[in-house]
Amino acid sequence: MMKHIIKTSRILLLVLFTFAYTNSQGQDYASFINPFIGTSNYGACYPGAVSPNGMVSVVPYNVTNNDKNKLSTDTGWLSNPFVSDNHFMTGFTHVNLSGVGCPDLGSIILMPTTGKLEVDKNKYGSTYSDQVAKPGYYSTIIDKYRVKAEVSATTRTGISRYTFPKGQSNILLNLGLGLTNESGAYAKIVSPTEIEGSKLLGTFCYHKDAVFPVYFVVKFSKPAKEKGYFKFQQPLVGPRAKWSSTSGKYKIYRKYYKELAGDNIGTFFTFDTDEDEQIEVKIGVSYVSIENARQNLEVEQDGFNFDKIAKETYSNWNTELSRIKVEGGTKEDKTVFYTALYHILLHPNILQDINGQYPAMESDQIKTITDGNRYTVFSLWDTYRNVHPFLSLVYPEKQRDMVKTMIQMYDESGWLPKWELFGRETYVMEGDPSIPVITDTYLRGIRGFDIEKAYKAMLKSATTEQKYNPLRPDNDFYLSHGYVPFTSNYDNSVSHALEYYIADWNLSKLASVLGDKKNEKRFAKQAKGYKNYFNKEFNLLVPKKEDGSFIEDFDPKMGENFAPSHGFHEGTSWNYSFYVPHDIKGLIKLYGGNKPFVKRLETCFSEDNFDPANEPDIAYPYLFNYIKGQEWRTQKHIHNLRKLYTTKAGGIPGNDDTGTLSAWIVYSMMGIYPVCPGDMDYAITTPTFDKVTISLNSSVYSGKTFTIEKSDSNPENPYIQSISWNKKRWKRFFISHQQITKGGVLKIETSKTHK
Amino acid sequence: MMKHIIKTSRILLLVLFTFAYTNSQGQDYASFINPFIGTSNYGACYPGAVSPNGMVSVVPYNVTNNDKNKLSTDTGWLSNPFVSDNHFMTGFTHVNLSGVGCPDLGSIILMPTTGKLEVDKNKYGSTYSDQVAKPGYYSTIIDKYRVKAEVSATTRTGISRYTFPKGQSNILLNLGLGLTNESGAYAKIVSPTEIEGSKLLGTFCYHKDAVFPVYFVVKFSKPAKEKGYFKFQQPLVGPRAKWSSTSGKYKIYRKYYKELAGDNIGTFFTFDTDEDEQIEVKIGVSYVSIENARQNLEVEQDGFNFDKIAKETYSNWNTELSRIKVEGGTKEDKTVFYTALYHILLHPNILQDINGQYPAMESDQIKTITDGNRYTVFSLWDTYRNVHPFLSLVYPEKQRDMVKTMIQMYDESGWLPKWELFGRETYVMEGDPSIPVITDTYLRGIRGFDIEKAYKAMLKSATTEQKYNPLRPDNDFYLSHGYVPFTSNYDNSVSHALEYYIADWNLSKLASVLGDKKNEKRFAKQAKGYKNYFNKEFNLLVPKKEDGSFIEDFDPKMGENFAPSHGFHEGTSWNYSFYVPHDIKGLIKLYGGNKPFVKRLETCFSEDNFDPANEPDIAYPYLFNYIKGQEWRTQKHIHNLRKLYTTKAGGIPGNDDTGTLSAWIVYSMMGIYPVCPGDMDYAITTPTFDKVTISLNSSVYSGKTFTIEKSDSNPENPYIQSISWNKKRWKRFFISHQQITKGGVLKIETSKTHK
Repeated sequence: MMKHIIKTSRILLLVLFTFAYTNSQGQDYASFINPFIGTSNYGACYPGAVSPNGMVSVVPYNVTNNDKNKLSTDTGWLSNPFVSDNHFMTGFTHVNLSGVGCPDLGSIILMPTTGKLEVDKNKYGSTYSDQVAKPGYYSTIIDKYRVKAEVSATTRTGISRYTFPKGQSNILLNLGLGLTNESGAYAKIVSPTEIEGSKLLGTFCYHKDAVFPVYFVVKFSKPAKEKGYFKFQQPLVGPRAKWSSTSGKYKIYRKYYKELAGDNIGTFFTFDTDEDEQIEVKIGVSYVSIENARQNLEVEQDGFNFDKIAKETYSNWNTELSRIKVEGGTKEDKTVFYTALYHILLHPNILQDINGQYPAMESDQIKTITDGNRYTVFSLWDTYRNVHPFLSLVYPEKQRDMVKTMIQMYDESGWLPKWELFGRETYVMEGDPSIPVITDTYLRGIRGFDIEKAYKAMLKSATTEQKYNPLRPDNDFYLSHGYVPFTSNYDNSVSHALEYYIADWNLSKLASVLGDKKNEKRFAKQAKGYKNYFNKEFNLLVPKKEDGSFIEDFDPKMGENFAPSHGFHEGTSWNYSFYVPHDIKGLIKLYGGNKPFVKRLETCFSEDNFDPANEPDIAYPYLFNYIKGQEWRTQKHIHNLRKLYTTKAGGIPGNDDTGTLSAWIVYSMMGIYPVCPGDMDYAITTPTFDKVTISLNSSVYSGKTFTIEKSDSNPENPYIQSISWNKKRWKRFFISHQQITKGGVLKIETSKTHK
Repeated sequence: MMKHIIKTSRILLLVLFTFAYTNSQGQDYASFINPFIGTSNYGACYPGAVSPNGMVSVVPYNVTNNDKNKLSTDTGWLSNPFVSDNHFMTGFTHVNLSGVGCPDLGSIILMPTTGKLEVDKNKYGSTYSDQVAKPGYYSTIIDKYRVKAEVSATTRTGISRYTFPKGQSNILLNLGLGLTNESGAYAKIVSPTEIEGSKLLGTFCYHKDAVFPVYFVVKFSKPAKEKGYFKFQQPLVGPRAKWSSTSGKYKIYRKYYKELAGDNIGTFFTFDTDEDEQIEVKIGVSYVSIENARQNLEVEQDGFNFDKIAKETYSNWNTELSRIKVEGGTKEDKTVFYTALYHILLHPNILQDINGQYPAMESDQIKTITDGNRYTVFSLWDTYRNVHPFLSLVYPEKQRDMVKTMIQMYDESGWLPKWELFGRETYVMEGDPSIPVITDTYLRGIRGFDIEKAYKAMLKSATTEQKYNPLRPDNDFYLSHGYVPFTSNYDNSVSHALEYYIADWNLSKLASVLGDKKNEKRFAKQAKGYKNYFNKEFNLLVPKKEDGSFIEDFDPKMGENFAPSHGFHEGTSWNYSFYVPHDIKGLIKLYGGNKPFVKRLETCFSEDNFDPANEPDIAYPYLFNYIKGQEWRTQKHIHNLRKLYTTKAGGIPGNDDTGTLSAWIVYSMMGIYPVCPGDMDYAITTPTFDKVTISLNSSVYSGKTFTIEKSDSNPENPYIQSISWNKKRWKRFFISHQQITKGGVLKIETSKTHK
């Protein structure tokens, strides 16, 4: 079925993309993007319309629990508003997360229907057909009503255009339906063309204090003939249940237009429409106030002009994507590459309103940003590994604002973020990931933020005792003994510690740069604590108890398929045992030297101990680059792993994790990979394309472009024969950030066999 | 148990009433009031603090479904926030209805607790003891927490004073709990001393469009140490139910202070208190906006001064009650009398805010009243019979504003009210009761409203075809055939028609006064249509079909105890068969003349066919006055029925119906009764008191006082020997409104036996 949908969409793409944009260089990068990639196989991406780093996305919502839907949050693990495996839609959401592992947002849902008003999602929902999706545009035919729905978005607003048949047409705003674990909304029908309201979101991954409101204003291009609310009524008991006609049912409020609040509410606006009459609905969103949502809407959408918005957003995507130009490769290669680049640019999102206001971190305060953007949605345990290094290289102005945001969060809440979501720390996953992000950014030469303050913030989380330390909840024993002890079944002790080590290594590097010798030394030493976990018997990292002994009954396979695992978070010991990117040399020693290390590392791939979708091990294939003569293994594995990324809905091997897997494939297809944040070396492998040109931001980097060329288009020649840098022989299988940002050409000669 | 509570409260009354007010005449009328009267036996009154016609009342809420409570809306018929039969309280409500037949309002509930925060009503609720209640004041000890709770109220605000023990003290605002069939609230913690919000109320008697919001602002005398929300979480299903720790439970939001909306929400404010520390909480209410609620609070309560508010409200009650001074009788007589007078003065309520704004009838508009009060809560099917005639006599300035309000409602909605509740027509019960209310008021000489407009409004409902007529839904056949036909089992056809007859008779009277001869004649004729229903076989009114035949299998007892009844609403044929107060002569003829009529009417009393709590028959005892020589029967029955009204919690024989039963006993104890609205004659019977003095409003009436004297204090002398008016022999057993409002003394000589 998925195949069919994509196929259909492709055909329509050719027909309907009348306003396809071509940028000044004549390149229509956006045309390669297939937003359906990552919408199955738990990729958790969405096909809806969104602007680069946009606050708003307009996404078909097809995850209502219904017999036509294979997946729903009521029946299984699901974290996104749309999956290609499903077939029954109940509207279009306006705030969404892409590629995350827990359900949230997926709210403010508009749905066009026709005929007699029906407000129960399972009754008004419909199958859909003829989907079209491209940057900033999505459309489909809603089968049950023969309504064509088209959606687009600006940064802070969405717009929908519904083409109705003749008769009674209805537009529902459902505030009860959605992905978020939170509930409760407030709405007010302002006029026959306007609704305002708010909805509570959050409790992401069941972190109960991480809740936040979203505000919205909805405007219709045509005044409603009738309007009102609906609300699911709590079941009454006793005599009231007998007397009430709406107990445990939806009640429709046809004569009440003042504000309505409740767990499961919505509004209906009904219209008399002619055949093919189009009604446009635009929604402005804010995380500050209804007033700001209205201002965002007024400024970003003057009047109703769907085509103009869709065209501008498409154009904006082309501008963003034009930073990297690829040549050669197949059309599928380009689709995979640019779609991954597109996915990288969805999160973090712009948080501030058009007037600069944003909700301060862990605070009731509203603050105003005067320079650049304030970002939100920092899934840092994921993104510190490659997304932020990537942004530093290609979009350093974005990365600067993200680091500024992180330091503002410290100012506002007293702590740097770990997994921030709309001003709330969710504490999802572990470690102290702001340290490598900020250190890496600084070491790459990006300035414009207060590194001294950031350093102070880092020292705070690194040294504060655990009782007062939300970021390092097991800091006391770690500081005194150098590791986090296993204390209860299924704890994540080793995972915690491994994250602390890389954070501490970064902290040491930053201390060095800032001239703090004492801390340079202290944290460099601390970063080597990973050795505590090495168990010679198993030849792997093994959880260790407070008394220094390893746990009994250790099972290296424990934790496969997201099963709980002693010491390791969402993975096996295998997925973590080579995750010491800051001290590969030390790690090699632990494993007994180069040869045993290579053998052990290869076992990951040969014995299915490698998970291409689990972040701690995604750089494993690049580790062979650290052993002279073994680099071909990196090339081989990357060549093979490339095939996991396709143009199909399941074309991302797992959770995209707000762009982390996408960054992995983008880098890997370019032929370079930042194995260790804070380490300026990129590992080199065979690029997919004949030529990749990155336009460098001249305000940050001295070079104009960095180009990677491949001698040979033949994909059957995956091995590197030789490397040159600016036409000179290059012997290392690494190249530093400082080198490439001065500009130049990295040329790779390939061959069918390795040396 | 009830006895115990009242007894306890009495004892404490003597001790605690340190600020007992004595008015200028040295009379402390308010001291006679026992607000517990009517809090059992379905009286549906409440013991809480309230100002005369106040928008706000602060009432202990003890009707949560709990094994310590005998009655709850979950387990039976209940319409009020407090019943003396129950023992488990869960807070104090701030908007309430008194003496109504369906549950509504009973919302905005404050509850003091101590120790660990608990937000589930059944867990934090408690028994209570040492209740004290008097006008404008209620207090109790909340057993579980040893907290003394005292409450008082101004017109638009409530105030609570809690005396806490040492330790953690909590004040909960529960917006999920309440009597109303509606749900859904919005709250925002503004600061550590303030909350604002709104809540949806309505769906009174399951009339689903009759919904309206109430707005509130809460202020605390002490800043909270901790604060936050709670909300009952909808049960999740599937994997989310497993992962969530709060699914189907209350969740406490300790770090979130922005707005929260939901079906079942509340706030908590916690404090560190010393032993006997007092915290005051005041709440301002508005039916217009949060801003108005805040202004109401600021104007009516400057700072925190519980004692001042309680004293002023008590004093205001004394001023109101001083319109009628009674002498003689027992203390119990005075308690029954003044408590009934107090109950009459609870509804209708003042609706406009301190700035004059109010929600217009059946409209989104906010209007402003510049002169007098805008009232709400018009239970007109009940109150047109005696409450409004009573107000016209004793509080004509209130009655004038009520009629002005009713005409404003016509201006705003196109129709006069039937059962209006906070700007919403609920269409509860039947008939066209605004017609007798306004006509009666006008005929009593009250001016200051637009009678021409009112007449136009009356003609509209009387003549508009039923399709467009919400007040007379069966007008078509009624207009063409003179009666409402029985069309389906358990319809209320005869009840509908009987109400139309008295309305039409009033309309005829008004037409006469306004010189509209044609309509005078038309409606006078129409008012006699009751004869259609008289069935000689049964000697009663019997439902009649469209073809003119009576229904088969007629059962005169059908409808007892609120069982459904063919043709009669909440009653039997007996309860309605003498309800033609505007044409008693015609009715007597139907029954075959004076003797058969008396015999038949006596059967009501001798064979238990009289319901002292069902409005259509409450004037039956006075009908004997219409037959010369039979007036003693009125005196006998009133003497006996007087005993149904006691100082006990069950001391009202049924639903007070917003003061209708109270008006019955107040009139009856004074010795006069307005048998028929629109008829200016009061039937005379033996008064309870030796002397009753009504101070007449000199701006409306020429007389200064109207006094009723009884020659003999002996309650065993219930019969009237003779009557004099201003010292002249008075032969009639009626006296007109025009006579008594010129001032004078009606003196009644009594005897043990009747003539």
